[in-house]
Amino acid sequence: MPIDIARLSAEIDHLAQFSDVPAPAVTRVLWTPTDLKGRAYLRQLYDEAGLDVRTDALGNTFARWVGSEPGLAPVATGSHVDAIPHAGKFDGVLGVLGALEAIRALKNSGHKPRRSIELIQFTSEEPTRFGLGCLGSRALSGARTPDQLRALKDADGVSLDDARRNAGFDGSLETVRLPDDPYHAFVELHIEQGLELERLHLPLGLVMAIAAPAALRVEIVGVGGHAGATLMPGRRDALLAGAELALAVERAALDTGSVDTVATTGLFQVHPGAVNSVPSRVQIEIDARDINGARRDAVVEAIQKAAADIETRRKVTFHLEILNADPPATCAPLVVNALETACREIEAPFQKMVSRAYHDALFMARVCPIGMLFIPSRGGISHRPDEYSAPEDIARGTDVLARTLAQLSKG
Amino acid sequence: MPIDIARLSAEIDHLAQFSDVPAPAVTRVLWTPTDLKGRAYLRQLYDEAGLDVRTDALGNTFARWVGSEPGLAPVATGSHVDAIPHAGKFDGVLGVLGALEAIRALKNSGHKPRRSIELIQFTSEEPTRFGLGCLGSRALSGARTPDQLRALKDADGVSLDDARRNAGFDGSLETVRLPDDPYHAFVELHIEQGLELERLHLPLGLVMAIAAPAALRVEIVGVGGHAGATLMPGRRDALLAGAELALAVERAALDTGSVDTVATTGLFQVHPGAVNSVPSRVQIEIDARDINGARRDAVVEAIQKAAADIETRRKVTFHLEILNADPPATCAPLVVNALETACREIEAPFQKMVSRAYHDALFMARVCPIGMLFIPSRGGISHRPDEYSAPEDIARGTDVLARTLAQLSKG
Repeated sequence: MPIDIARLSAEIDHLAQFSDVPAPAVTRVLWTPTDLKGRAYLRQLYDEAGLDVRTDALGNTFARWVGSEPGLAPVATGSHVDAIPHAGKFDGVLGVLGALEAIRALKNSGHKPRRSIELIQFTSEEPTRFGLGCLGSRALSGARTPDQLRALKDADGVSLDDARRNAGFDGSLETVRLPDDPYHAFVELHIEQGLELERLHLPLGLVMAIAAPAALRVEIVGVGGHAGATLMPGRRDALLAGAELALAVERAALDTGSVDTVATTGLFQVHPGAVNSVPSRVQIEIDARDINGARRDAVVEAIQKAAADIETRRKVTFHLEILNADPPATCAPLVVNALETACREIEAPFQKMVSRAYHDALFMARVCPIGMLFIPSRGGISHRPDEYSAPEDIARGTDVLARTLAQLSKG
Repeated sequence: MPIDIARLSAEIDHLAQFSDVPAPAVTRVLWTPTDLKGRAYLRQLYDEAGLDVRTDALGNTFARWVGSEPGLAPVATGSHVDAIPHAGKFDGVLGVLGALEAIRALKNSGHKPRRSIELIQFTSEEPTRFGLGCLGSRALSGARTPDQLRALKDADGVSLDDARRNAGFDGSLETVRLPDDPYHAFVELHIEQGLELERLHLPLGLVMAIAAPAALRVEIVGVGGHAGATLMPGRRDALLAGAELALAVERAALDTGSVDTVATTGLFQVHPGAVNSVPSRVQIEIDARDINGARRDAVVEAIQKAAADIETRRKVTFHLEILNADPPATCAPLVVNALETACREIEAPFQKMVSRAYHDALFMARVCPIGMLFIPSRGGISHRPDEYSAPEDIARGTDVLARTLAQLSKG
């Protein structure tokens, strides 16, 4: 397959320049001016590749290579291009620009797809702005209704509806959900964001299941005051309650005894945030995941129990909200087999594995058969500026993706 | 004494409008455009009152009513007008506008001072911007040298020198320190920021000593990563280390067994601060105080010990810096007696007490005899939008201040 790795690498680098922080860090948050510039650049690439482009009311973008039987359900591929604060340049981006390169390589190799092949650039896989990951794929799959979407507000109190309109996406949210049986299959290329492939010295991972994520938002309201004059016994310090909660989150994950359980307090904002002021309010966001849905639910329950205990003991008020608690997803034999065949064609060894990170594929699994292909990420590092995947691994993954799309588009 | 409480209250309200947050909250941080507008308003009031105004290279402002023997050391009074984020309108402001009203009342009553009376508006009593409280009074008293001041940077990396020049204060820092024996006495009017006067149903507090404050800045550096893919056993989570430190700060204060010990983690900033990212870095600021300097030092040592233990156990790196660890101050009989005489003149009952909050008077104690006068603050609340002192208490405090200044200016 004629993968142009130089061009693909240059495009990844170019997209990384659309960032709100200096390189090598990338910050590209939903519907910011920077995100919109990145989207415009990608739109130009889709046009240059001769794809038919459609954008929905959430900004999900569909770039289609029309097949010889356009009435058949297309084969879809894609990922996201938003980046959390101070992230790297490969997470998500590889699955968009890699898919574009796979399509271009198929075109150049003379392939004529029977089913259309559609590249989907999902809106906001990262939860940065609205506290909810996979915004686009949740909406496409019906996992979130238009009313639920309209109820979302960002940290500045801006509603999702206002934010999308300000960014130029002003269609009806009712038109976002995909029709029944929208795709023959969906396959997502992604960096591993873990150490398994590196440890095994294997270049490719075939995902069999995606871990079940849950996200919690907690607001703790205590009583502020002057740090010198407010005596210790009368204090109702929101930060100390939050500190105990963060430690309880860690304990809940460790207590399952399974290495597959993870729980993280990633966001922790203290109000008013002055050295001489007793903290009156803390905003916390917690992420808990497991490949076993029941075990993940038990962790969430343990966190809720700890919160109730701290609330009573420290005489503060907890507002705890479960933002999402999604079921795990299983990959479809149709897609896994196609990926496996493609790997064998180029004699690339692979590992069957689970995805501990969640992806848009988790939600696409609700509407069509899915699969995922991982390439190694150095040191297992992700969501950091030093996130790195080697060009040869990127080229190999893109080649396997192209072959997989070719095979699925015949079926 | 002809105190115009309506005018004074209106001036307090007007100054509160210079704020970066909506009323009733007040945020007025050093050398922001808002702070500069507030300063300009005050300058106008000093001019209208016929005072001679001088501003030094740090923005400390001196408004002098020249006495009949201008060669004698003046009597000084004053406080600060900066406000921490989401504070109230009385802390500091009362000691500036109240002092102005006291001077105006003395003028209106026909008083002719022998010694000059000087109102000092100190720069940045609050540590918000440079992490160091009493910036102006430290510099005036020589507790910080010009070189130490020049080494200060704010959270955005802006040096104190650049910040003051941008705000229009561009004189030499070498000229800020006061000459030897600069004042006959210094007396500061302030809200109590505690509950003692309210509990005792007394309108006035005469401060006998000011508690010794210390401030620590801690940066904890861990290792970030993807919250889904970074397994628990390998984590070096900076937030969890910070959570343990905050709880250790509380424990260190409680362990002294004295109600006079307080310790607070007021600032706690998490990087990168995304729900799906393991925190890699935390910035913390800690405040510890006691009326007993040795006991306060023991608390600081206990915090340092806890930090070393957490650092080893969690395999993170701590950068711990003691920003200041000041000695307590004792009020001078000269000033306390003058305050007591003034209270008796108007038959106002009072309580002798300690100040748990620190004030510019703590540093003025290094260069002249000092005293402080407290009025009640409702519910002991301070550094909050609902900070409140009643007009009758403000009027009474201003009256006692005026009489005290009159008496001290005769001596």
